[in-house]
Amino acid sequence: MTLVDTITITSLNFCEIIPLLATATEAENAPMVLSGVLASLVVIYLASTIGAEICARINLPPVLGQLLGGLVVGISAFHLLVFAEGGGDISDSLMMNFLEVTTGLSPNDAAAIFQVDSEVISTLAEIGVVILLFEIGLESDLQELLKVGPQAAIVAVVGVVTPFVAGTLGLIFLFHVPTIAAIFAGAALTATSIGITAKVLAELQYLNSKEGQIIIGAAVLDDILGIIVLAVVASLAKTGEVELTNVLYLIVSAVVFLVGSVFLGRLFNPYFVKIVSELKTRGQLLIPALIFAFVLAYIATVIKLEAILGAFTAGLILAETQKCRELKDQVIPIADILVPVFFVVVSAKTNIGVLNPLIPENREGLIMASFLIVVAILGKLVSGFAVFGQPDTNRLAIGVGMIPRGEVGLVFAGIGSASGILSSGLDAAIIVMVIVTTFLAPPLLSVVFRPNQLAAEAKVRESAKVPAEVKEAN
Amino acid sequence: MTLVDTITITSLNFCEIIPLLATATEAENAPMVLSGVLASLVVIYLASTIGAEICARINLPPVLGQLLGGLVVGISAFHLLVFAEGGGDISDSLMMNFLEVTTGLSPNDAAAIFQVDSEVISTLAEIGVVILLFEIGLESDLQELLKVGPQAAIVAVVGVVTPFVAGTLGLIFLFHVPTIAAIFAGAALTATSIGITAKVLAELQYLNSKEGQIIIGAAVLDDILGIIVLAVVASLAKTGEVELTNVLYLIVSAVVFLVGSVFLGRLFNPYFVKIVSELKTRGQLLIPALIFAFVLAYIATVIKLEAILGAFTAGLILAETQKCRELKDQVIPIADILVPVFFVVVSAKTNIGVLNPLIPENREGLIMASFLIVVAILGKLVSGFAVFGQPDTNRLAIGVGMIPRGEVGLVFAGIGSASGILSSGLDAAIIVMVIVTTFLAPPLLSVVFRPNQLAAEAKVRESAKVPAEVKEAN
Repeated sequence: MTLVDTITITSLNFCEIIPLLATATEAENAPMVLSGVLASLVVIYLASTIGAEICARINLPPVLGQLLGGLVVGISAFHLLVFAEGGGDISDSLMMNFLEVTTGLSPNDAAAIFQVDSEVISTLAEIGVVILLFEIGLESDLQELLKVGPQAAIVAVVGVVTPFVAGTLGLIFLFHVPTIAAIFAGAALTATSIGITAKVLAELQYLNSKEGQIIIGAAVLDDILGIIVLAVVASLAKTGEVELTNVLYLIVSAVVFLVGSVFLGRLFNPYFVKIVSELKTRGQLLIPALIFAFVLAYIATVIKLEAILGAFTAGLILAETQKCRELKDQVIPIADILVPVFFVVVSAKTNIGVLNPLIPENREGLIMASFLIVVAILGKLVSGFAVFGQPDTNRLAIGVGMIPRGEVGLVFAGIGSASGILSSGLDAAIIVMVIVTTFLAPPLLSVVFRPNQLAAEAKVRESAKVPAEVKEAN
Repeated sequence: MTLVDTITITSLNFCEIIPLLATATEAENAPMVLSGVLASLVVIYLASTIGAEICARINLPPVLGQLLGGLVVGISAFHLLVFAEGGGDISDSLMMNFLEVTTGLSPNDAAAIFQVDSEVISTLAEIGVVILLFEIGLESDLQELLKVGPQAAIVAVVGVVTPFVAGTLGLIFLFHVPTIAAIFAGAALTATSIGITAKVLAELQYLNSKEGQIIIGAAVLDDILGIIVLAVVASLAKTGEVELTNVLYLIVSAVVFLVGSVFLGRLFNPYFVKIVSELKTRGQLLIPALIFAFVLAYIATVIKLEAILGAFTAGLILAETQKCRELKDQVIPIADILVPVFFVVVSAKTNIGVLNPLIPENREGLIMASFLIVVAILGKLVSGFAVFGQPDTNRLAIGVGMIPRGEVGLVFAGIGSASGILSSGLDAAIIVMVIVTTFLAPPLLSVVFRPNQLAAEAKVRESAKVPAEVKEAN
């Protein structure tokens, strides 16, 4: 009888009222699962808002404040947000202690709820970054992106090759790291965190500038290159040689996906507008748009790319319809409540304990980390100067925009450490490199895009927008 | 090293690329968890939109279409949305089969993901109804609600007592059901589904009418009475007598919560507006409002009330600030994407197989169900006629508005069945009663609130609004 365990919105806590009927554990726990999620969201929102507001007041990008807020409430400091998947124990979680105390949960039930809540909040965070990239796509201009395509490609390739080669060789020759491990660490230096960069650019209102579009284009390509690099490195680690079929498969599927979805999407756009205009019930624009975004995100994961690439592509396609502005207005509140979850969760899971030089085990890692940080920053800065034929381009800004490694680098560290390829020192070094580049990039970006430049750029953008709108109206 | 398992937004599917590194299972599965959730959301949105659009075209409330859409994709028909908590097996879930086929997941991983996805979608549904009640609160008028308070109270009490007494006595004397089981089934007849009623009223734009406010007020009180009835019945079932302290505790905490939060909330409102005006970063209105709503929802569950009561109260309080209109505009898109999840999930979990009269085991239940349905409908219709001193009130509409039992009744059925108090026939009868009243109420409501009445009422509301706005502006 599946009805029995229907979703219990009647959040009765039966635990104390009817212990006799305690076999209905799911019915009992469901309201507590919700309570735990709501309490976690409150902590996330407080951390992100306070962090963002402080940063905004000292002219730093708000997203940096959200990341710092996450550090404060997370595993590194106050343990309010601890995640079961991170190997975190329920006893580490102040939030679960609070839930146990306030609701009289039994420790067994609390452990089950801790597990579920961790998964729910993590998934909300992932949906948050999907929505972020969808919004970024909506705010991007496909024409402009295609125009800067060659520049973006060169920035991406240089920004992947330089840190990879310099990092790998440096680790082998300066630190005598085994070749496979060095290649793995070098690979971790390649991928740019598109989420953090795009968010900072949007906050600086620089997303639609030429530099902004080159950075976004390059970050998207970087993501794809990162996936290919990971496949190559992993197959090297496994068999000592590169499985060409896998690599070819990834390259072909990425190209087919991007080109195909943009091409088919443009054909589909008039039908989208037509369908949306026919609908009468609530959410008539938002829901079809999200269906489209989620389908592309799903297809992207199925062909071994990333969900965020699909969401970005969907935004890019819908940005060309006449419904774009209305859609953006409706996506903003959704992004407002989901995107902070992503940034706070990412940094709540980051343990900055590995940065403590007073702990002797950290030292070897910190020395290697210093080297990796220098390579990570210089390797991406160089990529900005690879831009050709664009005299009045802020090349420094492009290079800086590519610096944050974010969660992508952590995936490499995670896999490397789980598989035993990386020594704990090197693993920690990668994590430190990721933390430093991620937290350094937002303030650096706001320095290189100076406010006066911003104003000038805004004017150019405004006047450039008019013909696009006229076109849109047809 | 907790960083290792950081949230992997880089949704690489490592399964095929690097089986060697397969120890990093969480990093592997995270993208698939997201894919499963996105695919489920696509199914939910398609079902809710298609259902709602069809109903809107034949002059039925869209929410009925969402419920019907949920039946079609759920356990009763196409098995696209099946939930692990419902005792559902992964082999029942077409969605998971689809995920396995498209992504090459191993059956073991798929089972784990099925579990997590079920929890995530269920929690999203619960957040959906929290947001729905927050929105309903924002659209309600505390003054009006207090004015109709006595009427709402009498409707609630009559609507709880009549079906409870008639149902219990009928089952004992007509069907020779044991006393405790009859009392339990009688109790399942008491609570109104505030979610469905409020949604239909909002769709008919009847939420702010006198009848609408009486129904909402009575439904809120009904919810509280339902919790008290459950506590009484459960303690009867357990010890054969009523634990007065528990009952008193519930009554006192409900009163203190409602009165206290409204009173303190009104004191807090000016500070809320002040804080919100000071904030500079994105989500500056929405995030503080949601923090407030989630905190009240959390407190409500902690004192054994329901999360939705807290969210409703928060909306009611914030409706009195001058930011209300702006806030409503921002909550709408969020409700648009989360509320359909609730309605589709509730009915996707409902197995209408128990309605099939061709299956002999169903017949006993169906006969008792017919009796329960009659009692459920008449018992609530009577409550509308208990309204006093209000000559031009649509009493029939109020009674009809109280009919849907929704998920509340299912909780009773679930607990009764899990504890062995209810025979399977009586359990099925309660479920059938819930299904019929839930699906019957939306079309009945749109009949009793006839469109011409609606237009007249809309005018009255419009003119009544002016002074409120003038007051608001100060």
